[in-house]
Amino acid sequence: MENLTTLTGKYGEEGDRLIFKILNNGLHEKKDADKDKLNAEWSKVLAKPYSSPVVTERALRYDLTIPFARYVVMHQNELAFPFRRYQMQPVWRADRPQRGRYREFWQCDCDVVGSTSLINEAELLCIYRSAFNQLGLPQVTLKVNSRKLLAGIAEICGMPDLMMDITIALDKLDKIGWSGVATELQGRGISALGIAQIEKVIAVSGTNEERLQALEIIMANCEIGLQGIKEVRDTLAYHTQLADKSWSSVIEMDISLARGLNYYTGVIVEVTCSAVKMGSIGGGGRYDDLTGLFGLKGLSGVGVSFGIDRIYDVIEELNLFPEQLATGSQVMLLNFGGSNEQYALQVLQQLRAVGIAAEVYPDATKFDKQMKYANKRGIAYVILLGDEEREKQLVSLKNFVTGEQKMISLNDCFHILNNN
Amino acid sequence: MENLTTLTGKYGEEGDRLIFKILNNGLHEKKDADKDKLNAEWSKVLAKPYSSPVVTERALRYDLTIPFARYVVMHQNELAFPFRRYQMQPVWRADRPQRGRYREFWQCDCDVVGSTSLINEAELLCIYRSAFNQLGLPQVTLKVNSRKLLAGIAEICGMPDLMMDITIALDKLDKIGWSGVATELQGRGISALGIAQIEKVIAVSGTNEERLQALEIIMANCEIGLQGIKEVRDTLAYHTQLADKSWSSVIEMDISLARGLNYYTGVIVEVTCSAVKMGSIGGGGRYDDLTGLFGLKGLSGVGVSFGIDRIYDVIEELNLFPEQLATGSQVMLLNFGGSNEQYALQVLQQLRAVGIAAEVYPDATKFDKQMKYANKRGIAYVILLGDEEREKQLVSLKNFVTGEQKMISLNDCFHILNNN
Repeated sequence: MENLTTLTGKYGEEGDRLIFKILNNGLHEKKDADKDKLNAEWSKVLAKPYSSPVVTERALRYDLTIPFARYVVMHQNELAFPFRRYQMQPVWRADRPQRGRYREFWQCDCDVVGSTSLINEAELLCIYRSAFNQLGLPQVTLKVNSRKLLAGIAEICGMPDLMMDITIALDKLDKIGWSGVATELQGRGISALGIAQIEKVIAVSGTNEERLQALEIIMANCEIGLQGIKEVRDTLAYHTQLADKSWSSVIEMDISLARGLNYYTGVIVEVTCSAVKMGSIGGGGRYDDLTGLFGLKGLSGVGVSFGIDRIYDVIEELNLFPEQLATGSQVMLLNFGGSNEQYALQVLQQLRAVGIAAEVYPDATKFDKQMKYANKRGIAYVILLGDEEREKQLVSLKNFVTGEQKMISLNDCFHILNNN
Repeated sequence: MENLTTLTGKYGEEGDRLIFKILNNGLHEKKDADKDKLNAEWSKVLAKPYSSPVVTERALRYDLTIPFARYVVMHQNELAFPFRRYQMQPVWRADRPQRGRYREFWQCDCDVVGSTSLINEAELLCIYRSAFNQLGLPQVTLKVNSRKLLAGIAEICGMPDLMMDITIALDKLDKIGWSGVATELQGRGISALGIAQIEKVIAVSGTNEERLQALEIIMANCEIGLQGIKEVRDTLAYHTQLADKSWSSVIEMDISLARGLNYYTGVIVEVTCSAVKMGSIGGGGRYDDLTGLFGLKGLSGVGVSFGIDRIYDVIEELNLFPEQLATGSQVMLLNFGGSNEQYALQVLQQLRAVGIAAEVYPDATKFDKQMKYANKRGIAYVILLGDEEREKQLVSLKNFVTGEQKMISLNDCFHILNNN
């Protein structure tokens, strides 16, 4: 949880609406005078989207970025800058749940604050690509753009103040196509000449470098646009130096990429997996003044976020989870009770001592029930320890996949399990 | 978060008071008729410790056990029983924060449900001991008792209905001594004869087996007490078979151990670390009917919980965190800009390719600043890559501890870093 005041006003009007607030505790124990105040505040809560510290002082995290900025400012004297951190935690949004959208979900963020070098952007792109490669996700695209290029578009339209309007309209290009965007731009007060300029920008295609070169011509007289082009080009160049050739994902310069939130100022990135119909599975960018919200000026940062729940959904939908994840034990010892149970515990202890993940069925129930259990759990081997095995100090090892069963020494059993 | 109704009434009156409730969202968007209802409910919230679903439907987890029981009941048809799980998550309590007590803290729980075998109790004791051994905590004691022994005490006092009263009083033995407990027992309506019986029980001492034998004599005619003794004895015997001789913690039969919560029915356990003045750092026990709260009868379970924040505090207070935890990188490459930066990125990529945790200082700032940064981060080595190193395709490796610096080949550098 965070203090509500830390979060309020940081995510726009819609964000404020979606923050889960925690009711202050012990309200019924207040004095009567305080209760009058509580009633007055309650009326305000009901009248408008208003937060009252006497009704609710605390709230649930809406993302990890603002709490991180709060943390950096609180600990600015202890931290070594540039400060890098990753953080995996649940966040909460009072949204209507639907496919890929949860009320409670996990984010995984990596940020670097206190450095303006684009090496950081390149490193974060590498983290994305390395992680998605290790997860085995196919058809992953990292779309890259710069907020400065979006500012440049607004400038060459002659409407620098309407950057946010243009950005919001462009953000819908995927969903409503160019004609829809053009209509929206018109509605937002962009001139026909401006719309024509934007169309020219949108039409840019080819390799990333071809796109950057085409944009360089369009933005020839627009300083902020040229800065954006240089940022993207340098980021991609650093990235090429650091990247592993085996990573299968691709990076695509996408001039229509906007990212929703306001605080980005430089390079921005968004990750999609086109193998599945799902919104973005990650996103981030540079923010030049996030900690300024909490009084620490001039500290630039850049970060990316993994949407862990959506990534989980994608992996599940593509059936990419390995089957053996279903269990932690490689082998289960059946429990035949009495002195055979004693022997089973002794074998269990020895298996564990050599590092084999083993468990014993805790109750001396029917054989069939124990076998069904091991099968349902997806455990690869079972060990049967009856009178004969105990007397001979051997074990009967059964491979659940092949059905093969043999009575062997404990050492042979270690050997087989360690090599499978 | 959980539905508030899942949590309410499960932790006693005090627990209900300490549950953090989440204010329903969008209250100001309700229709007027609904707002009248909201106002009426609000008055009730202010009048007594009352929860209203129109004001607050959801709440923050108070522990992991009740949400786990809810989960087991919801998924009873998919799970394989005995079902084992571990779970590490934050929980929240609206308590006054103080040493060892937090409003938001982490629990780590292990439970087994669907088996009455005491092998489970023994396995959980092993998990405790193994974990505390790996953490290197000194002077760890696992106190063990059985709720059935506490019921037996109430029975031999002739007051079987006052088991909870006796338990609550006994629980304070550590804090207020026997005379304090005796006074409290008297106040709770226990007869002088009963108090004399309890004193006899409390006086039992010696090894665990000696204590059990002494209790066996006292409880000779008390069936539930004898059951409790057998439970503890069998648990300890199973534990001895499974335990690793190298674990340094001790297990102590403690007849005064009660555990606060009501739902335990069999063996109970509590962990303390006497090296530090701190409450228990773990606890658990068997609960015969936890899922019965949610309509699934007859499923016995047993579980333990690690109090991660307190364990962290103990480790910090005893200064047991290894120093090298402070950093993730073994080596930092200094950044001298331009083509030397290019060379640094190339070396960085190669270091990482062979599995060495390496980073580059992202900005080409002053030498001193970069060196200070590496030092503050506790990074063991730095690599300096100037014109000479780049031209000769060598690296200058500096050991931060010894101060030694030498210009060597990249292969020699790999070798040194891989062996340190």
